[in-house]
Amino acid sequence: MEEWARSFLETQQVGRLATVDRQNRPHVVPIVYAFDGKRLYTPIDAKPKRVEAGALRRVQNVRQNPHAAVVVDRYTEDWERLAWVQLRGRALYVESGAAQEIGVRLLEEKYPQYETMPLAARPVIVVHVTELVSWRAAEAA
Amino acid sequence: MEEWARSFLETQQVGRLATVDRQNRPHVVPIVYAFDGKRLYTPIDAKPKRVEAGALRRVQNVRQNPHAAVVVDRYTEDWERLAWVQLRGRALYVESGAAQEIGVRLLEEKYPQYETMPLAARPVIVVHVTELVSWRAAEAA
Repeated sequence: MEEWARSFLETQQVGRLATVDRQNRPHVVPIVYAFDGKRLYTPIDAKPKRVEAGALRRVQNVRQNPHAAVVVDRYTEDWERLAWVQLRGRALYVESGAAQEIGVRLLEEKYPQYETMPLAARPVIVVHVTELVSWRAAEAA
Repeated sequence: MEEWARSFLETQQVGRLATVDRQNRPHVVPIVYAFDGKRLYTPIDAKPKRVEAGALRRVQNVRQNPHAAVVVDRYTEDWERLAWVQLRGRALYVESGAAQEIGVRLLEEKYPQYETMPLAARPVIVVHVTELVSWRAAEAA
């Protein structure tokens, strides 16, 4: 991974998680995330949801088809400064155990918002990253 | 569609397009877009690419599997102000004809950046939207 991509993933606050449903249709939602260099963690947190954690489309999708992709990007009106990093790999929905605990710790370290809304036993989706593509307009030109 | 979602899609500048590859794995990239209420248009423009238009993963994907999803969202540190709209439907890659021309016109109207980088005969991906989901933290709570 290029150095800029590593620090970009650390400092950016939001990504978008794409998963695939049973009919092979994509689904994509914004997520908060933490990335440890190999695994990306995204919580099913207490932000309001229409349905329970297990019934969320992203959760149902990764249970059926573990392939997932996350893009983290910077949009600016100056298109010379556009940049994005796409992470692809296999996702696992975890309700407990070491991966859930590591995810919660990393997410709570990254986002001060969790001080008033602790993740505690909240489930986490862990993406085991096998492919990383990074792109910057300035560099690609 | 709710009124806020319509104006949100008009004013936001960037979306993320998710498609699905031959192995049923998702792919997701940031896009500029224009939405006319039924169809979302995103260009294969002159921003630098690694490969030619037809070889782009998003293009290969929609040619094999037309299902596509686009999310447009607002991230703020104040999580009470989070919002997103997800559009899902069938995507078509068009190199010419009425849909390509309408897409180019709407995109050039929306993005002043195209004044110095005209789209002209550039191909467009058109998503015929069949499902729209909108979410706002404040409303969902």
